[in-house]
Amino acid sequence: MPAAYYTGSGQLEFRPCEPRRPGPLDVRIEVAYGGVCGSDLSIYRGLRDERMLLPEIIGHEMSGTIAEVGADAEGWKPGDRVVVMPFDTCGDCRACQQGHFHICYNLNFFGVESAGAFQDSWTVPAHTLHSIPDGISLELAALVEPVAVAVHAVRASGLRDGDFAVVLGGGPIGLLTALVAHDRGGRVLLSEVDPFRVDVARGMGLEALDPTADDLQEAVLTASAGSGADIVFEVSGSQAAATIMSELLCTRGLMLVVAIFSEPAKIDLKRCFMRELRLQAVRCYNHEDFREAIDLIASGRYPFERMITARVPIEQLPGAFQQMESGAPVMKTLLTIGGSGP
Amino acid sequence: MPAAYYTGSGQLEFRPCEPRRPGPLDVRIEVAYGGVCGSDLSIYRGLRDERMLLPEIIGHEMSGTIAEVGADAEGWKPGDRVVVMPFDTCGDCRACQQGHFHICYNLNFFGVESAGAFQDSWTVPAHTLHSIPDGISLELAALVEPVAVAVHAVRASGLRDGDFAVVLGGGPIGLLTALVAHDRGGRVLLSEVDPFRVDVARGMGLEALDPTADDLQEAVLTASAGSGADIVFEVSGSQAAATIMSELLCTRGLMLVVAIFSEPAKIDLKRCFMRELRLQAVRCYNHEDFREAIDLIASGRYPFERMITARVPIEQLPGAFQQMESGAPVMKTLLTIGGSGP
Repeated sequence: MPAAYYTGSGQLEFRPCEPRRPGPLDVRIEVAYGGVCGSDLSIYRGLRDERMLLPEIIGHEMSGTIAEVGADAEGWKPGDRVVVMPFDTCGDCRACQQGHFHICYNLNFFGVESAGAFQDSWTVPAHTLHSIPDGISLELAALVEPVAVAVHAVRASGLRDGDFAVVLGGGPIGLLTALVAHDRGGRVLLSEVDPFRVDVARGMGLEALDPTADDLQEAVLTASAGSGADIVFEVSGSQAAATIMSELLCTRGLMLVVAIFSEPAKIDLKRCFMRELRLQAVRCYNHEDFREAIDLIASGRYPFERMITARVPIEQLPGAFQQMESGAPVMKTLLTIGGSGP
Repeated sequence: MPAAYYTGSGQLEFRPCEPRRPGPLDVRIEVAYGGVCGSDLSIYRGLRDERMLLPEIIGHEMSGTIAEVGADAEGWKPGDRVVVMPFDTCGDCRACQQGHFHICYNLNFFGVESAGAFQDSWTVPAHTLHSIPDGISLELAALVEPVAVAVHAVRASGLRDGDFAVVLGGGPIGLLTALVAHDRGGRVLLSEVDPFRVDVARGMGLEALDPTADDLQEAVLTASAGSGADIVFEVSGSQAAATIMSELLCTRGLMLVVAIFSEPAKIDLKRCFMRELRLQAVRCYNHEDFREAIDLIASGRYPFERMITARVPIEQLPGAFQQMESGAPVMKTLLTIGGSGP
């Protein structure tokens, strides 16, 4: 099976995978599934070039089976089903020293700063691994990484049982953020313009509306007896959402920014002043977030399989990107890689 | 002595003060000094009209002496020297019920929603009063309100001993925020373009630089061994500051927005994402902030009198506004009102 190399804006090359022998603390994984993320699309469109040394193998959402274990990588054996928390850190910078490894000043994010998951045979440090319990299929396991993003965001928000949360944007991360907030006891309203995505969200048990058809602000005020939401999760990356998020909040409410904005966004700081609003941006996850993501999927409380709207061979990655950009009815596309085939 | 009525954009009228007899829970104060604030200038320029019923007496920074006490206003007597925390609240809304009275959904801010301090004889609810200790002159007491703004901002920031804080904007609130942050153990760097204000800040013991002459980002990185500041207090209300504030912070650093932005500001949310930055907007103060402001002035730890750069009769308020707008060498102008004159 080939590896997917990004070679420059709009260009991918599929070359045979070259397995790398694991060092003493590494493992080599046969990758089963790769999840296609909006960040991969951003790479494909040349928006991460300043962080990359080309050509590079992309991909960071995955599941797989251990094929080979380094001499000192204790606790793992061939055949173990695993997912990878896809980054490594310097351990020395101020963020690392404070325990915030995921925002290391010298973060090495797999699939950006170093080789990623869209290859049959992926060698990574053993400390990045999480074991997948029997109850989770390798397909569902490929969702652990985006679920961990949502777990991290909801944790950072401080959401408490009974809080009213609005999620702006119902792509995979928005949908998962809404699910995790709901699971933590939040009353959740998801706002999404794409009718297909609204349907997927409703099918997974969420309350969702299309803000171009219904009045979002009115709905939020009605649901909160005029006060506004406690938390708005911004997961769309759009200026329209950045504009409205401060309007939806109660006094001292929180704008939790999960989306990556490619341009500076205009924010109504006067509104923030009047209500003493807060904003918190979040990135990635840590091992605890991964463990909770695995537990949540394993719990069976939500039909995560409904998110997986396509399974295609790795060579069809360019077509998957085009679908994402065209607004086709897609939620999460999984690439079938070596370990998932017959 | 007259009262200063705002009658419409760019217009003030000085009419004889009409003393109002205090209700049972009110007191009537002979106002000694009024402090001229940037918010008063905003009112004068028509930027708060939507909150006001014109004509209205403006002003909210003051000091004075009690002249008359309502029948049930216990604990106060004529002759007591006082300042007023200049707002009243509904007590019923969600913010009030959570104890955040200062961001009441129905806030009645004196000098905006109801009659303010720029009059000889001001009747207010007794629960808004704070007693001024003997060691504080009525001139210095007129600074309690803006010091309380700074105390509130620094408290909200969670600044800890040894934290490195940058303050953007060295007008009265920026200067006081820097002083309070310094008093709480912060290492503080004030950034201000006006050379007169830089001099005042240095004269009060602060480290200050002019970002048009020196490289602010370089200075911040040097002072923090490359990490960035823990907190940036944004007190300038300028887009230039909103642009740079996210560049100056360490991972998980805080943008504490004290300024009132008249227009939405562009903020680099991608930078916020990369470093998991936070933003918190603050407004006003509470009784604890007022008590701490009084204690700080009484402590003698800082030469607050150096902030007072002019004392003029109340009728010269239009000229004071023009000075503020023209960039004249002004920090805080006090109006002499009834109780301060011979």
